[in-house]
Amino acid sequence: MKPMGPIPPGFVAADDGSLAIAGRPVEAWVAEAGGTPLFLYDREAMAAKIAAFRAAMPDRVALHYAVKANPYDDLLSWLENRVDGFDLASAGELARVEAAGGLARPVSMAGPGKSDDDLSRALAAGVTVNLESEGEAARLVALAEACGTTPRVAVRVNPPFALKGAGMTMGGRASPFGIDAARVPALIRWLVERGADWRGLHVYAGSQILRAEVLVEAQRATVALAGEVAAAVGMPVRDLNLGGGFGIPYAAVDEPLDLAAVGAGLDETIRAAPDVLAETAYAIELGRWLVGEAGVYLARVVDVKESGGTTFAVTDGGLHHMLAATGNFGQTLRRNYPIANASRFSQVASEEVTVTGCLCTPIDLLGDAVMLPETRVGDLVAIFCAGAYGLSASPQAFLGQPAARERLV
Amino acid sequence: MKPMGPIPPGFVAADDGSLAIAGRPVEAWVAEAGGTPLFLYDREAMAAKIAAFRAAMPDRVALHYAVKANPYDDLLSWLENRVDGFDLASAGELARVEAAGGLARPVSMAGPGKSDDDLSRALAAGVTVNLESEGEAARLVALAEACGTTPRVAVRVNPPFALKGAGMTMGGRASPFGIDAARVPALIRWLVERGADWRGLHVYAGSQILRAEVLVEAQRATVALAGEVAAAVGMPVRDLNLGGGFGIPYAAVDEPLDLAAVGAGLDETIRAAPDVLAETAYAIELGRWLVGEAGVYLARVVDVKESGGTTFAVTDGGLHHMLAATGNFGQTLRRNYPIANASRFSQVASEEVTVTGCLCTPIDLLGDAVMLPETRVGDLVAIFCAGAYGLSASPQAFLGQPAARERLV
Repeated sequence: MKPMGPIPPGFVAADDGSLAIAGRPVEAWVAEAGGTPLFLYDREAMAAKIAAFRAAMPDRVALHYAVKANPYDDLLSWLENRVDGFDLASAGELARVEAAGGLARPVSMAGPGKSDDDLSRALAAGVTVNLESEGEAARLVALAEACGTTPRVAVRVNPPFALKGAGMTMGGRASPFGIDAARVPALIRWLVERGADWRGLHVYAGSQILRAEVLVEAQRATVALAGEVAAAVGMPVRDLNLGGGFGIPYAAVDEPLDLAAVGAGLDETIRAAPDVLAETAYAIELGRWLVGEAGVYLARVVDVKESGGTTFAVTDGGLHHMLAATGNFGQTLRRNYPIANASRFSQVASEEVTVTGCLCTPIDLLGDAVMLPETRVGDLVAIFCAGAYGLSASPQAFLGQPAARERLV
Repeated sequence: MKPMGPIPPGFVAADDGSLAIAGRPVEAWVAEAGGTPLFLYDREAMAAKIAAFRAAMPDRVALHYAVKANPYDDLLSWLENRVDGFDLASAGELARVEAAGGLARPVSMAGPGKSDDDLSRALAAGVTVNLESEGEAARLVALAEACGTTPRVAVRVNPPFALKGAGMTMGGRASPFGIDAARVPALIRWLVERGADWRGLHVYAGSQILRAEVLVEAQRATVALAGEVAAAVGMPVRDLNLGGGFGIPYAAVDEPLDLAAVGAGLDETIRAAPDVLAETAYAIELGRWLVGEAGVYLARVVDVKESGGTTFAVTDGGLHHMLAATGNFGQTLRRNYPIANASRFSQVASEEVTVTGCLCTPIDLLGDAVMLPETRVGDLVAIFCAGAYGLSASPQAFLGQPAARERLV
């Protein structure tokens, strides 16, 4: 038996003993959607996260949604009047946010390889471009001059500090992301000279961070860095995007993030910030933390088989929809996501089962030697923590399998 | 500086010093295709592989194409009258092979999670179903009885032997693939009693194997296993699919497979096969080995930047098209694929560059500290060995980036 991650709070059994999502048994959702595999995204779970953020964080800190985590249209539309802004990684995401009505709010675009098309569309939409290099700054200014508009820009800083305890770190070393801090003041002066509307800074130091003290320290260092940059250029920082990086527990070893501690730390940081940041508008961009635990991936068991003493439950889902759950999306070690027999959610886990996808490759492993109730052909399997970096981060065309369905519930 | 894999044979510089593919400079192909990122698949490179297979392998061994490696339509159409059959992983692949005119040849379908739809379409098309469990056999027979057809079946055997030196092994242990060897004769008897057209066996012991002796031993063990099964059921094995697994060099540590040694070993194995296999038709199913080295992924440099003493070349491509090149597709260790500055292919490698994709994630790493000629914005970067498990095995929707183009050249 191998451990699995904790099932996120709020998931309970329906009267029939199956998993309920948004108050209805999973089979009802599958019937309504027309089949499996199916992603369900629970509005109440997201609303609870937003409320928790508002309660824990200082009022001055805006909540942005990082669209890269999940660009599903209905989810964006639902978030549109519940978050304070959107952060984008491409013109493709811009189009989705525009369709969801999100352009009325502050929107920024980051990414180390923005094309001229990305930059032009950002310009046309009035999006703040988080500049990642001097070369990109020059391209944007030239594009803006060619069409007679004033570019709205922030500078993304490659911070000189590193984070410990992050799932992925991006600071404290050579990086394709942002501009090394020492060169940032010169770039800002150049931008201002060229007539750009310089709004502030963007610092993203890491992702999937579960230790509050790591986030608190990163935010403290980021505010200090912003103060230094503002002093160097002699101008206030109007917008400071503190990045995101709030993690969620995926594996048995993971402890949930202590949000109250993060909020208290950030409150202290902001109160202690230098005068040059007195008018600064702070934002935190969250993707995974906001929507990850709200998503459930449902697949149906098409075969149960025994081999060499192991029981395999083979589903109609797989890594073509949930690559990250198989440990093949940046993880160095494969760990079991939380997984359940959704048809027998109230039953006691009584047998060790290895749950696989339907793909003809040994890496299509969804639950390795997990304890589940006795699992039969036709049962639904649920993989939790599927709301972020799920479908859009998976090789959907692989092996010509049918498309997954998605529903906001 | 970190090493990279060897550039496959046959790629040379054009008169202008850039990389030539199929006799034309890469920029000509990009212009014709309408831009980057672009996958080019070289017919001559595939033809050379097919010729090498025919020369090295015994005449009795048929060459099948494993569609999962690359299901691009034009590539399938080109292969259609050059290989002897197709092996499928889904009804979706069946539709593609049908469109390419491939159903006139022997076609089989494998995969541990075949849906009723997969099975029904295979039945309707006369495809040999490689059965992966007793449960699947029962489903297929029931579906066939319901529509009054005779199912054409083979039994996929989970072999009792393991391969050493394979990139991925699938035998010698509990597995979701195939049926443990000891249970195979009973299943065959049951299938024959139920009127199924039992054709033979399918054994797939591993993939990405570069050591000839490992393949020779696997094929020897597979033939011996087939002889035992045939003796146990008292019937000849008409078709024996020996699997595939021929590897190609991706990394600096990889040595090319000695095909002549594989062919000689298989010839000896077949000559020494028991009488009950005298009429057996052998097939090998190849994907990666056939098309992998024929594919080149071209992306354009959109930014060159310096950070912490490292030079980064950021391209408009990335892991959304070439996940495997970033080390996130089943690899335990990230190693550099062969990579080149395709615009300056004839120039001496003079600087250490880290080549990344355009995605806003640190795992989007295409070439880590590789030696290239001086690389500038606008240059084309080529990643080789991109013909198999490339675009279709990548999260194409991730971060809303533009689609890649594909061309058979």
